[in-house]
Amino acid sequence: MRIAIIGLGYWGPNLVRNFLSTDGVHGVICCDVLDTRLAKIKKSFHDVELAPSFDEVLKRGDVDAIVLATPVSTHISLGMHALEAGKHLLVEQPLALHAADAEALMSRAEQNRLVLMVDHTFLYTSAVRKIKELHTAGKIGDILYFDSVRVNLGLFQRDTNVIWDLAPHDISIMEHIVGLKPLAVSAVGVSHFDDHEDIAYITVSFPNNVIAHFHMNWISPVKIRKILIGGTKLMVVYDDMEPSEKVKLFEKGVQIKGKENESKALVEYRIGDMYAPHIEQTEALSLVAKDFVEAVCRGRQPVSNAHVGLNVVKILEAADYSMRMGGKSMNL
Amino acid sequence: MRIAIIGLGYWGPNLVRNFLSTDGVHGVICCDVLDTRLAKIKKSFHDVELAPSFDEVLKRGDVDAIVLATPVSTHISLGMHALEAGKHLLVEQPLALHAADAEALMSRAEQNRLVLMVDHTFLYTSAVRKIKELHTAGKIGDILYFDSVRVNLGLFQRDTNVIWDLAPHDISIMEHIVGLKPLAVSAVGVSHFDDHEDIAYITVSFPNNVIAHFHMNWISPVKIRKILIGGTKLMVVYDDMEPSEKVKLFEKGVQIKGKENESKALVEYRIGDMYAPHIEQTEALSLVAKDFVEAVCRGRQPVSNAHVGLNVVKILEAADYSMRMGGKSMNL
Amino acid sequence: MRIAIIGLGYWGPNLVRNFLSTDGVHGVICCDVLDTRLAKIKKSFHDVELAPSFDEVLKRGDVDAIVLATPVSTHISLGMHALEAGKHLLVEQPLALHAADAEALMSRAEQNRLVLMVDHTFLYTSAVRKIKELHTAGKIGDILYFDSVRVNLGLFQRDTNVIWDLAPHDISIMEHIVGLKPLAVSAVGVSHFDDHEDIAYITVSFPNNVIAHFHMNWISPVKIRKILIGGTKLMVVYDDMEPSEKVKLFEKGVQIKGKENESKALVEYRIGDMYAPHIEQTEALSLVAKDFVEAVCRGRQPVSNAHVGLNVVKILEAADYSMRMGGKSMNL
Amino acid sequence: MRIAIIGLGYWGPNLVRNFLSTDGVHGVICCDVLDTRLAKIKKSFHDVELAPSFDEVLKRGDVDAIVLATPVSTHISLGMHALEAGKHLLVEQPLALHAADAEALMSRAEQNRLVLMVDHTFLYTSAVRKIKELHTAGKIGDILYFDSVRVNLGLFQRDTNVIWDLAPHDISIMEHIVGLKPLAVSAVGVSHFDDHEDIAYITVSFPNNVIAHFHMNWISPVKIRKILIGGTKLMVVYDDMEPSEKVKLFEKGVQIKGKENESKALVEYRIGDMYAPHIEQTEALSLVAKDFVEAVCRGRQPVSNAHVGLNVVKILEAADYSMRMGGKSMNL
Repeated sequence: MRIAIIGLGYWGPNLVRNFLSTDGVHGVICCDVLDTRLAKIKKSFHDVELAPSFDEVLKRGDVDAIVLATPVSTHISLGMHALEAGKHLLVEQPLALHAADAEALMSRAEQNRLVLMVDHTFLYTSAVRKIKELHTAGKIGDILYFDSVRVNLGLFQRDTNVIWDLAPHDISIMEHIVGLKPLAVSAVGVSHFDDHEDIAYITVSFPNNVIAHFHMNWISPVKIRKILIGGTKLMVVYDDMEPSEKVKLFEKGVQIKGKENESKALVEYRIGDMYAPHIEQTEALSLVAKDFVEAVCRGRQPVSNAHVGLNVVKILEAADYSMRMGGKSMNL
Repeated sequence: MRIAIIGLGYWGPNLVRNFLSTDGVHGVICCDVLDTRLAKIKKSFHDVELAPSFDEVLKRGDVDAIVLATPVSTHISLGMHALEAGKHLLVEQPLALHAADAEALMSRAEQNRLVLMVDHTFLYTSAVRKIKELHTAGKIGDILYFDSVRVNLGLFQRDTNVIWDLAPHDISIMEHIVGLKPLAVSAVGVSHFDDHEDIAYITVSFPNNVIAHFHMNWISPVKIRKILIGGTKLMVVYDDMEPSEKVKLFEKGVQIKGKENESKALVEYRIGDMYAPHIEQTEALSLVAKDFVEAVCRGRQPVSNAHVGLNVVKILEAADYSMRMGGKSMNL
Repeated sequence: MRIAIIGLGYWGPNLVRNFLSTDGVHGVICCDVLDTRLAKIKKSFHDVELAPSFDEVLKRGDVDAIVLATPVSTHISLGMHALEAGKHLLVEQPLALHAADAEALMSRAEQNRLVLMVDHTFLYTSAVRKIKELHTAGKIGDILYFDSVRVNLGLFQRDTNVIWDLAPHDISIMEHIVGLKPLAVSAVGVSHFDDHEDIAYITVSFPNNVIAHFHMNWISPVKIRKILIGGTKLMVVYDDMEPSEKVKLFEKGVQIKGKENESKALVEYRIGDMYAPHIEQTEALSLVAKDFVEAVCRGRQPVSNAHVGLNVVKILEAADYSMRMGGKSMNL
Repeated sequence: MRIAIIGLGYWGPNLVRNFLSTDGVHGVICCDVLDTRLAKIKKSFHDVELAPSFDEVLKRGDVDAIVLATPVSTHISLGMHALEAGKHLLVEQPLALHAADAEALMSRAEQNRLVLMVDHTFLYTSAVRKIKELHTAGKIGDILYFDSVRVNLGLFQRDTNVIWDLAPHDISIMEHIVGLKPLAVSAVGVSHFDDHEDIAYITVSFPNNVIAHFHMNWISPVKIRKILIGGTKLMVVYDDMEPSEKVKLFEKGVQIKGKENESKALVEYRIGDMYAPHIEQTEALSLVAKDFVEAVCRGRQPVSNAHVGLNVVKILEAADYSMRMGGKSMNL
């Protein structure tokens, strides 16, 4: 299998490095509009082949798959061309700027029987995989809430706001773990330095009073990446800033023990042990590459498939629109 | 000066203890509908006097001031009676359930030239006083945002929701520090175990893109009490769970350095030292008692005066209403 | 049972409070050379009886037991008088300044069939009880090392050094958990402000290369109270400064997997989950009082008995002597 | 300037990478007894030249300097050959196994007017440089103690013990910061899995009751790298595990305020602010390479010069000997 990686900015070289060492990959072709980037990638990774243009890549019959690490606004156009040229496709997150575009890409991939995957890298981290595994095994119970904070004195993005920059990480994790169909989305955000919001809060509501909430902030003095998940059986704290013990499971909870009287329920607390399962230190991106290659070779869906990608875009688009409408709740 | 403390449940005994050791207080009278509580308070504090009923207290000419540590729903009625009887008044937070009630109490106090104070205890902590002092001295600069998280596997309140239980702390701190007139409030919340919301998020918007956000949660596996304040000169982290170094000041920020081109601003980061000012370990409630007594004796306003109390109630009431309306933004 | 508490300085009032609420205690008599302390204790605890002198206490036939919360130098004399008068005895830690004195007290107690207990309070904390329980159940395996750090900008003791002030806590915990007979003790320490050492390090060696080490420091900028215990099955971190999760158990270790060649062993790591058992929040001193009263009433040994107390004094005395001798190793 | 790097095991490739990007370096020659390592380094860094043997390197007139990243036991022999061949020399820490060897290397370098430097990398970290800068400026005051803990479930070294593996880091930091001539060294240590000690404690004593203490442990369940430095003006905590704020300065201390009476000093505490100076994130090894190249080019001493290296070896050798002698104090 031969893979072309388009776009060699911040993330592209990581993709190159990981695909070069993935089983089943027999060639990596690199393509970028900037020659300096091409020269640099060739210096770092001598085994790669350089392609003069995206069109040349599309024409090559020996290229099986394309990876798009280009700005999100280009995904729909470049992605459609790739799929129309019969190439399997891995797209950097988020899949697109509009749900309609994401759906178009998904449909075309299905028609052409091609794999369409989104690089929601966090789904492949050992921490998220462990939480997913516990939830699938029924150990967390029903999820009551999902609360995420991702703040830092971050790299201001010049052409997007904090929602499109940071929320894809946490919304994809939420989508993957919670697995429920959201009812509505609302968001508020403010900008202080240019037109792009640098702080935003997103709320997603689900049936049965399940709620998800996301705090994104580019101008925080401290770096926090913390997710709280309340389940009826276990409560989870996933703190990505912890060097070890990133995932902590608390045998804590609240139980209703009948009714005290007409209007009042008897609430009881459950407080037990905490445990932090051992989390392997595997590079998530190597598993992204592996899942993509295997999905192509075996004709199966990857974990971070187009449905996940579409659901994330739906929430992002609704959140962005809600933010512009002063926090109005948007039904999905 | 002689003070009557009404209500000896959870917080009342702390008030008794602190007023007993406040200069200028020559007698503390205790009153509660439960005789067992009266007996217990007498056993712990032999110097207190017991009063058979609230009415008896009102009639006594030697009682100068009344402290209400009764449920919030009783504040309007008991408070009006106290003010009408010519007693200075300290009310547990929040001042009332409705802004109209808070305003009525405030007007009556002003008419009768009586001190009306609300026990927003956090305003008297060394940490909040230090932040206020820094902000007043211009060291924080303009405030860009105020973000508060107060979560725990908390004591479920049986007759109120998580907003009325927890938010008065953080909203009073915000009111005190930020000192701006809010434009609008919105809130979302969900309940899982009875009719009362156990998780809620409140957003308050101000002019010039200043934003405040509050996360309250009764069913979190971990206890977090953390406030981030972004200023143009300093950024503040106030972590009440830290045994020492509760307040950290970061010489961090973002600056606009002209325009790169038509549409893009040149953003620059400022990253300097962090320092944690020494925070004295004074019991905040002793300063509450002192401020109340001095306000009465010297005829001046206390820090946590009726205006602060009213502003807090306005936000709480709007937030509660917004939550019922599905997060609709409420203008103030 | 009627108990006399001698010495009402820093710790005495805590003893009074706990014995007053211990089942089986029908009277608490307080005694101190300072009348101001007697007046103060009577004000706080109205049910106590005051005794004019230690001699009066000894003479009273209705006093079953005596608790000594007096300076350690007085323990031998006051303690012997108490035992000779037929009183059961609880002594503040450490039991005595010299092993010979501790032995004398122990012998006399045995002869007179009286309970002699030392208030090594830490043995009764939920954390230490949990570790002891795990070790007794074989879950920790063989102990390889015990490392303790107890440092703070502490209260300088005017009449003793940092070893006698802080080490009794950690050495009693070590004695209780490790349960091995030490071979030798060495210690180094320095003083900076008066004649008393304010920093000291103690090493205790045991058979089979088991080692215990203690760091005590009165002039540390930060407060650390952390014990590491390496076992062949589990490794333990007991961090007393953690608000919750004081005890963490790590499924980590090193295993020998045969020999690589003549001189080199094949070492393998075991890295598994971490778990933090739920630790109840019981006041340890209430369990001290309970254990003492039950030991007296049922004629059994308390957990923190004279043997424990003697072993602690042996190590303290040897460490202090070693420190004076420049760190010379003292056989026990 | 042309540099040959001998030994391409764990650390060698880092040296290659850094020297390749150091100003003034016009060629990097790599040498190792294993051909596989040579092939691997050539694949990663195409600009390096490979040398067939150490002897070939010595013979080359165009090689100005040699870097030894070989086992410490080889330093004396390879190092003497390099110096005799007129090459400037950078040696991995520690400089040698014996003080006599270190002195021999130092003398030869001085005779031949060659730079001899030891790669005590930690001296070039931003954290240590900041502490050194503060101490040099008199802001820490006189140092009272230096306490270091470096523990982890570490990589067992097969041919050395925990002292030779871990202590060079902390002893070099101490040597650099404290800057006093030590009087005596003692150490205790135990081994559990083979002949090499896996836990050790070293004490170094200085005039005026200054003390330094080092805890090294290969079998700790948690990773701790923390240094406490008590100064008369400031107290320092250097926690290398902190992602930011690695260095914290505490305005805390103890002061003698005259004498209370004959035997007792009046001790007073000083408790002020804490501040954490901004620490740049520069790779220390790039500064090592820079310092070495500049020392060679300008004929000046590097920071981590042969004197520092010799002093570290003296303490290590004495500590190792003391450990074998059961903790006997060794005068230096």
